[in-house]
Amino acid sequence: MTLAPQPRLGVGMVGYAFMGVAHSQAWRTAPRFFDLPLTPDLTVVAGRNADAVRAAADRLGWRDVETDWKALVARDDVDLVDICTPGDTHADIALAALAAGKHVLCEKPLANTVAEAEAMVAAATGATGLAMVGFTYRRVPAVQLARTLVEQGRIGTVRHVRAQYLQDWIADPAVPLSWRLDKQKAGSGALGDIGAHVVDLAQFVTGETLTGVSAMLETFVRERPVADQFSGLSGTGSTSGATGPVTVDDAAVFLARLSGGGLATFEATRFASGRKNAIRLEVNGSAGSLAFDFEDMNVLHYFDASQPAWEAGFRRIVVTEPEHAYVGAWWPPGHGLGYEHAFTHQVVDLVDALAANRQPTPSFADGLQVQRVLDAVERSAADESRWTPLNEPAEGAAR
Amino acid sequence: MTLAPQPRLGVGMVGYAFMGVAHSQAWRTAPRFFDLPLTPDLTVVAGRNADAVRAAADRLGWRDVETDWKALVARDDVDLVDICTPGDTHADIALAALAAGKHVLCEKPLANTVAEAEAMVAAATGATGLAMVGFTYRRVPAVQLARTLVEQGRIGTVRHVRAQYLQDWIADPAVPLSWRLDKQKAGSGALGDIGAHVVDLAQFVTGETLTGVSAMLETFVRERPVADQFSGLSGTGSTSGATGPVTVDDAAVFLARLSGGGLATFEATRFASGRKNAIRLEVNGSAGSLAFDFEDMNVLHYFDASQPAWEAGFRRIVVTEPEHAYVGAWWPPGHGLGYEHAFTHQVVDLVDALAANRQPTPSFADGLQVQRVLDAVERSAADESRWTPLNEPAEGAAR
Amino acid sequence: MTLAPQPRLGVGMVGYAFMGVAHSQAWRTAPRFFDLPLTPDLTVVAGRNADAVRAAADRLGWRDVETDWKALVARDDVDLVDICTPGDTHADIALAALAAGKHVLCEKPLANTVAEAEAMVAAATGATGLAMVGFTYRRVPAVQLARTLVEQGRIGTVRHVRAQYLQDWIADPAVPLSWRLDKQKAGSGALGDIGAHVVDLAQFVTGETLTGVSAMLETFVRERPVADQFSGLSGTGSTSGATGPVTVDDAAVFLARLSGGGLATFEATRFASGRKNAIRLEVNGSAGSLAFDFEDMNVLHYFDASQPAWEAGFRRIVVTEPEHAYVGAWWPPGHGLGYEHAFTHQVVDLVDALAANRQPTPSFADGLQVQRVLDAVERSAADESRWTPLNEPAEGAAR
Amino acid sequence: MTLAPQPRLGVGMVGYAFMGVAHSQAWRTAPRFFDLPLTPDLTVVAGRNADAVRAAADRLGWRDVETDWKALVARDDVDLVDICTPGDTHADIALAALAAGKHVLCEKPLANTVAEAEAMVAAATGATGLAMVGFTYRRVPAVQLARTLVEQGRIGTVRHVRAQYLQDWIADPAVPLSWRLDKQKAGSGALGDIGAHVVDLAQFVTGETLTGVSAMLETFVRERPVADQFSGLSGTGSTSGATGPVTVDDAAVFLARLSGGGLATFEATRFASGRKNAIRLEVNGSAGSLAFDFEDMNVLHYFDASQPAWEAGFRRIVVTEPEHAYVGAWWPPGHGLGYEHAFTHQVVDLVDALAANRQPTPSFADGLQVQRVLDAVERSAADESRWTPLNEPAEGAAR
Repeated sequence: MTLAPQPRLGVGMVGYAFMGVAHSQAWRTAPRFFDLPLTPDLTVVAGRNADAVRAAADRLGWRDVETDWKALVARDDVDLVDICTPGDTHADIALAALAAGKHVLCEKPLANTVAEAEAMVAAATGATGLAMVGFTYRRVPAVQLARTLVEQGRIGTVRHVRAQYLQDWIADPAVPLSWRLDKQKAGSGALGDIGAHVVDLAQFVTGETLTGVSAMLETFVRERPVADQFSGLSGTGSTSGATGPVTVDDAAVFLARLSGGGLATFEATRFASGRKNAIRLEVNGSAGSLAFDFEDMNVLHYFDASQPAWEAGFRRIVVTEPEHAYVGAWWPPGHGLGYEHAFTHQVVDLVDALAANRQPTPSFADGLQVQRVLDAVERSAADESRWTPLNEPAEGAAR
Repeated sequence: MTLAPQPRLGVGMVGYAFMGVAHSQAWRTAPRFFDLPLTPDLTVVAGRNADAVRAAADRLGWRDVETDWKALVARDDVDLVDICTPGDTHADIALAALAAGKHVLCEKPLANTVAEAEAMVAAATGATGLAMVGFTYRRVPAVQLARTLVEQGRIGTVRHVRAQYLQDWIADPAVPLSWRLDKQKAGSGALGDIGAHVVDLAQFVTGETLTGVSAMLETFVRERPVADQFSGLSGTGSTSGATGPVTVDDAAVFLARLSGGGLATFEATRFASGRKNAIRLEVNGSAGSLAFDFEDMNVLHYFDASQPAWEAGFRRIVVTEPEHAYVGAWWPPGHGLGYEHAFTHQVVDLVDALAANRQPTPSFADGLQVQRVLDAVERSAADESRWTPLNEPAEGAAR
Repeated sequence: MTLAPQPRLGVGMVGYAFMGVAHSQAWRTAPRFFDLPLTPDLTVVAGRNADAVRAAADRLGWRDVETDWKALVARDDVDLVDICTPGDTHADIALAALAAGKHVLCEKPLANTVAEAEAMVAAATGATGLAMVGFTYRRVPAVQLARTLVEQGRIGTVRHVRAQYLQDWIADPAVPLSWRLDKQKAGSGALGDIGAHVVDLAQFVTGETLTGVSAMLETFVRERPVADQFSGLSGTGSTSGATGPVTVDDAAVFLARLSGGGLATFEATRFASGRKNAIRLEVNGSAGSLAFDFEDMNVLHYFDASQPAWEAGFRRIVVTEPEHAYVGAWWPPGHGLGYEHAFTHQVVDLVDALAANRQPTPSFADGLQVQRVLDAVERSAADESRWTPLNEPAEGAAR
Repeated sequence: MTLAPQPRLGVGMVGYAFMGVAHSQAWRTAPRFFDLPLTPDLTVVAGRNADAVRAAADRLGWRDVETDWKALVARDDVDLVDICTPGDTHADIALAALAAGKHVLCEKPLANTVAEAEAMVAAATGATGLAMVGFTYRRVPAVQLARTLVEQGRIGTVRHVRAQYLQDWIADPAVPLSWRLDKQKAGSGALGDIGAHVVDLAQFVTGETLTGVSAMLETFVRERPVADQFSGLSGTGSTSGATGPVTVDDAAVFLARLSGGGLATFEATRFASGRKNAIRLEVNGSAGSLAFDFEDMNVLHYFDASQPAWEAGFRRIVVTEPEHAYVGAWWPPGHGLGYEHAFTHQVVDLVDALAANRQPTPSFADGLQVQRVLDAVERSAADESRWTPLNEPAEGAAR
């Protein structure tokens, strides 16, 4: 399939579950809609089960398979390693890939601990390959527009941020245990899984960093059914009657200070009945305000405080105009995009950076900085919600 | 004007500014739409300036005037003293009124300090007169419906509350000083003025109390123009060039724990550009969720988690049906009410309680409990946001 | 009760049902919030049942009663006759009042037939008194803002109007007959009762008139229970089993041409399940668009087509700023108004016009023009929806 | 690329503009997310310009090219002809394809005239191949849910439909002429381009057909700039100063009767400033109501009239649950889909039908029925909006 005379970018993906499916669609789709300086070649996907990974490769469009990620990393035809596994394996794979001179795209959170994340940043610094962490929601056009308006000074001095990531998929105590509820595998619960996203979004949109937090964590349902071995992780299957402990947080709430002096409230929960994937960000500034909700992802609400009060109001901008980031490559105005498009945009930005030998954003250092916020949240929550300051962003953070 | 054979309730109101106007409209209007067991008689209004109070009395419908509130309290034709003055005078007036055997309706916050509020509760306990504090937003029909749904178990165990009171009237640093920005007069800033309302609302709707807080306060604009003596408090008049300090908070944010184990986030600010009077309350529980925003005050959003997921969704209930609290006395379905109607409903509930010699709610003890929350917020904010537990509700709290 | 030294305006109201209650509240409230050049005196209310009208007078605040409207019209202490009766009596009362030199405020629709309306306009022309028809929704501040934006040229050439008045109170076939379903009393059904409002609103906001219509009328439920004599008109009481015919339309839909060349669609129905009082008006013009829904009556949505597409969007203007029509007399920003406030505003505008001896709007001629539209709708619907042109507006129309 | 052992379906696509891009993405993506009984093989794409079609083939993923659609139709490796050209060529290509024993997927509107559409239906009847017309919006999950609720009786007897398709891309008179404004190529303007969609949607969701119409058509801007030969069809390029006539309608509005007795209003326009692709459908029935707006395409609003009025309200169903049509193949709840997903769903349904040798829907007969509605609209508009009845649906209509 000769798409274009552009050089080839050999991609090897590790993991093929939810994130692997989304990344595959992005690698396949990006060159169909965007002019890429490198042509992604879906070379190989790795997974431990030979039959399953072969079936996934066929389904998702990967040419070859490996049952050991180390073999994938070692291949000469792989230029970039795309890490779509749970967080406890990110550091090992990324370190090996960078050591092998590969580029790396690593799903968020960067790692399960600050120490791992630091090691990853250290490895990325000076490595031949370029490294990026997958805070995909930055690539939603409405979020890009929010960032643009802040950059243009349309919001002014940021006074308030309220950031929420609300889901409800384990609000029912009958939902059984799974790896996402296991601290060993997942690192943390709602905090790292979804809280990490809104921390990144708040910092990305405002262009500021958090300088400290005061936090609470809670596990509402501390014991859950063990999923029957035959029912898998489906969450609703019949169970054996046995139960096991939930070792991560169900919800995290915290206050924070922004580097520009503003106040922020954060909330990440899997217990907000009726909210399915409500990523909400509201920013109030001296010159205007912004509001976004992923449940209406093609829309940004913007208030311009410079207009006379009698005709001012939050403006519902349908972010589907050709001038909006990424949108010109897709459809006419009013024809909205969906969840997976942000992954395609991530591929576009990553490939552009690689071709220019430019650090893609968010970098591993950006991922580490988010990790430090999560760590500070945990420490504050363990210490009577006491104010817990954050250090300056790591050297090399690209934000 | 013979409205009905019901006994007369002589009302004396102290203060006739914003709150006095709203209360007057309520006293005048309640008997026109509701069957009251006592007929309010707008007997006398008190204010220090003789001409101004006379003009206000004519405008607002009060028969007589006094220039000293003590004279008002002493009058035999006054059965109830309605306190509409700034917070620093609440305690004195209420104590005198209760000592004189009068009923008392006192605007919120109950007082500027916990000590004053405690004295007021002590005075109310065992007094001949009955005492009520004016958390008026409880009387919005949509808020009543929210409470009803919680009482019916339709929300289940409360997991999350997010409560916000967002305004923007001093977001512009050019807005001059006024008594609301003076700690001596106002006690606190956004915290006591509007934060008190959402604390009360959150507790009222959930039927729970806050057991502790972790808080931050902020004054974004610490120096403001002194209003020109000729420009008054209008906020936009020309000023002399002199400035003075803002001695209260511009914004308050805090985390809290509910007595049932849920997590809550609170935010009260006068710096949320574009939000005019956005009192927002969202409650997520194991059986359902609620969402309210005063900017659309005739509507309550309700999610019923017992419905099959494929047909479940937040239901936009237009709270204008005859079965809804208070609504049957007004207009047909779909003909919404406005801000001041809640004050009329407050009169209705108060008069009903007085006629039955029943403690009206919210009581002074309820007001004291809110005051204690505000106090804990200030102490936490002054102590590195450290977790600050709250004592049990005072004896006699009617909640 | 000495409100002010302004001259007295003696008001006599005929009818005291739904509209009478709303008008009474307006007469009582207007001088409390607005500076009126004349002081309304709620002199007398007329109704056929002596006991009932006396009770209503006490409840609603009228000093005296009459059991014959002719006696009311004849009184020297009555300067203005306020007609709140069903449409079949409007003409008689208005003609008598004008003949007696009184001012007249007449509820809409002006009359049940064009002939009656023409007689009323003729009587108003040259009469001593001034006459106004009560298209109250014009006085909602958001509607006034819509009109202002059109007048300022912010909408440009009007291309489209879509106007709907949606209710659902007789969607259930078990709802019994009442006078509103009887052509003799009501003149027409949804068409005259609520369709008249959106015809007036569309013309008022655009500043244009309809030049022709193509229409359909429908009676979905042609036979309904006769209300039991003991169950009254409540609509849900037990019934005798007898049924009777519905002689008016349940719904009206029509196309229209605006005088400026735009296209309009109109819909009035009592069968829109879930829509309680949804008065919706959307106007699309060459320079911008407007959208209003009475179910969120304090809000106007405005699209400014002159903004760059990437930052353009419908702006949700909360119409509660002091600069908005009428609003400055009420509450601070964000404290919304309700249904009945529009009646208070109607009193304000009427009294201002009377004091200045200026024709109030909408005039009887405006009411006649709406009546002619309704008549054209009926004629088109009876003639295969054929295009039915409208004559020019009557002489003297104040629009 | 061996996806699976399923038989191959050779696809030949004619045209590769907007619709060709959307169809290509669908053919590529469907087998990645859905289990298809046949494996689509993107065999060949046809276009008149050899270089351009080759570039398009590479970009869109088609193996081979033809510069004459007749050659494409003649190929043995093509099982299905996918027609993505303007309406004036649909009939010729479809007739040839069916004659050659191919399956056909034809973009809407089926043809530019009723006569052509009738010929296409005749050809499809008894042909070896199966034929489908592309009313893609049916495949939006929220639209499917709307249909399901109607089928389950949750809406009851349909009383009202209001259907609108609102765009604004030629509201500016400076937008130059293009083939879509040329009656020869496009057949009609807004009526056939977008009005056809809402006619199909209204009939699909209600399960009823239109029995007659009363209509108006309008061309607001009758003369437009001729696009400079170098500026192409971009719509904003510099122009030579020459102008030419617009020969199609800018907007269409019409009333209709549904076969079940309900009333409908329709509106299709390219002049609704601020509305980008607002496909709105509201259905009011005796048992409930539905409302959909494509600008929020993952949501359906549903009112259940069987609930007690005090807790009833329009329910905002986020249509992203695994039980919703097509959704289970994509992402977790709350992760919305975009415009192009409906094309993927169209491929899924078509391939399923082909494998089962079952008539896919909507059939050519369904397309003809819509064409007859459009024709009746034009005849009514040309005859004083007179009521124009429609014949019964053609034999063989699959709806």
